[in-house]
Amino acid sequence: MIALLTDYGQRGPYVGMLHSVLSQLAPEEPIVDLIHDLPRFNIRASAYLIPPLLRQFEKGTVFLCVVDPGVGSDRGDIVIETDGFWFVGPDNGLFNLILKMSETTRKFKIGYRPEYCSESFHGRDLFAPVAAALAKGDFSYLARVDQSTQSDLEGWPDSLAEIIYIDQFGNCFTGIHGETLGDEAIVKIADHAIRFARVFSDVKEGELFWYRNSVGLVEIAANRADCRALLAVDVGQRIVVDVE
Amino acid sequence: MIALLTDYGQRGPYVGMLHSVLSQLAPEEPIVDLIHDLPRFNIRASAYLIPPLLRQFEKGTVFLCVVDPGVGSDRGDIVIETDGFWFVGPDNGLFNLILKMSETTRKFKIGYRPEYCSESFHGRDLFAPVAAALAKGDFSYLARVDQSTQSDLEGWPDSLAEIIYIDQFGNCFTGIHGETLGDEAIVKIADHAIRFARVFSDVKEGELFWYRNSVGLVEIAANRADCRALLAVDVGQRIVVDVE
Amino acid sequence: MIALLTDYGQRGPYVGMLHSVLSQLAPEEPIVDLIHDLPRFNIRASAYLIPPLLRQFEKGTVFLCVVDPGVGSDRGDIVIETDGFWFVGPDNGLFNLILKMSETTRKFKIGYRPEYCSESFHGRDLFAPVAAALAKGDFSYLARVDQSTQSDLEGWPDSLAEIIYIDQFGNCFTGIHGETLGDEAIVKIADHAIRFARVFSDVKEGELFWYRNSVGLVEIAANRADCRALLAVDVGQRIVVDVE
Repeated sequence: MIALLTDYGQRGPYVGMLHSVLSQLAPEEPIVDLIHDLPRFNIRASAYLIPPLLRQFEKGTVFLCVVDPGVGSDRGDIVIETDGFWFVGPDNGLFNLILKMSETTRKFKIGYRPEYCSESFHGRDLFAPVAAALAKGDFSYLARVDQSTQSDLEGWPDSLAEIIYIDQFGNCFTGIHGETLGDEAIVKIADHAIRFARVFSDVKEGELFWYRNSVGLVEIAANRADCRALLAVDVGQRIVVDVE
Repeated sequence: MIALLTDYGQRGPYVGMLHSVLSQLAPEEPIVDLIHDLPRFNIRASAYLIPPLLRQFEKGTVFLCVVDPGVGSDRGDIVIETDGFWFVGPDNGLFNLILKMSETTRKFKIGYRPEYCSESFHGRDLFAPVAAALAKGDFSYLARVDQSTQSDLEGWPDSLAEIIYIDQFGNCFTGIHGETLGDEAIVKIADHAIRFARVFSDVKEGELFWYRNSVGLVEIAANRADCRALLAVDVGQRIVVDVE
Repeated sequence: MIALLTDYGQRGPYVGMLHSVLSQLAPEEPIVDLIHDLPRFNIRASAYLIPPLLRQFEKGTVFLCVVDPGVGSDRGDIVIETDGFWFVGPDNGLFNLILKMSETTRKFKIGYRPEYCSESFHGRDLFAPVAAALAKGDFSYLARVDQSTQSDLEGWPDSLAEIIYIDQFGNCFTGIHGETLGDEAIVKIADHAIRFARVFSDVKEGELFWYRNSVGLVEIAANRADCRALLAVDVGQRIVVDVE
């Protein structure tokens, strides 16, 4: 299986061109559009969002991940294998939380350049062919790198007390893992002090609450209302967690 | 075939997570994203929209349907078999028109709880595994219920004289079946009296008309213009049908 | 492979209904949603956008293309075979640039009417069954037409000095082929004179530039900003190319 995580958006021809390349090179592989509205150009927020989205995938899945504001510059590319999962994308920090998650991570560079490679769409021209090959068990495009070179992960804590994603309904994902907060915790954001509720239907219409969402993160939401609009916040907004 | 009808929206990771579960559990089954903008949290409008969307499917199709404002509360779940089609989703009225359509309907409950089931995403954790099993002909997750228990369908007429869906271009679907109106009928809505036309290109640019749309419903539209904006209406708006 | 290029939009049930028909009639064929936001009802802009999107497809691909403001009127239908690619859609000019591209083009009409054909959704009821048949190598739905009848392609130059598409981020595609302009060319639009840059990251945030985009067209963009909003332009806006 090949899963796609990008900031390309659903509209336009970009996702379709990825599919056309993947379907031609790996016609037997299911392709899943996991998310195409990763925070646009926001490497850090995306890096924190990616790992929680991966829980229900089986080993062997190839994740093609692209948030790539520096495409066409001299940023490198990277392939990571960890616990039987493969990741392909730009070497710009997007996989820093993946790298933190596991001690049995192997890193590679892409040792291949396609006949034609556009300067602005490496997802289609470089990463997709590599992802298709990996999904078929073909590792010939990989070049080993010195595994002792540590990625610099200082400044990348396990949890991030910020809004890292806002879905189309205004629900605000934070980078805080749900199991690290007790139900009594108060989430403070933009002059609001927000209490826990188990599910949407446990609070009144329009009421703000936080809960542990279906990908395991602390999410700030409002029942049948747009939390983003109520709080007037955006991705990157800082949060403080308090206990009464 | 598994067809998905939800109010999850196209953006975000929700539809992608459904696909990842279905692709892993039923890799041979085609998955069709039939609609992901069912009227948000609106069980009644969605219940009237679902049946007209199903005409072109072959027997054996499993429809995974989710409009579920009460997810995590004590609302039940339901599986319905009718005329060779299967429906899986919340037992909250969403299938009331399906239940009205046929006299050979069998109802079931889901007699299964997954190892992990989130409180806010039963589509992924509960309904998708059941839909995948049904598509493969595995009925072991079903629990029979007393078939003599009638669903209470009072207050659910066959036709609904309201706007039940507005598409992204502003075309307004009503819950009235097209074949029940003659061409001479006048559709009255929000101080407008709207006449029939056969197709968009039969009226002037910007002109309002009603027609029998491609799913068999009376639709109010405007040629190359946004009918919703012209009428300033929303889902739920009442309609009166008149004959001159 | 069947690739879909329409102006149906991603939302609503329209694309899903196409998929359901195609999956039932040609279950073995991969289906790629290449683009569903072709300029709405804009045959001319779409005609110029389609060919550049097709570069990475393999021979035998069937392209189901629909921009069809005259659906239900007396406009005809058309099937084109050129260099091993198949095109199916309305005979309204949408394929005029495809027809210009090749000297070995064969044209057909659809010699088939389905049992039920709606008046507003020929994509689902007429073009999809034909596309599915073609993908399976079944040509029985085609009717030969007099090949000596030339389509009138006057007024359809190879390059179009206009905005032909604006993506969801505001990047403006022109109908000018990238290889026809040198790096020194100045693109003039709406009182702006815009210079070349190789990639987004070569200019400052918010700065306008033009570049040869990943489908080979001259595109006007701004680094991490919405070019459409900065220029206040729309599809159809004229461009002048100048050299200092």
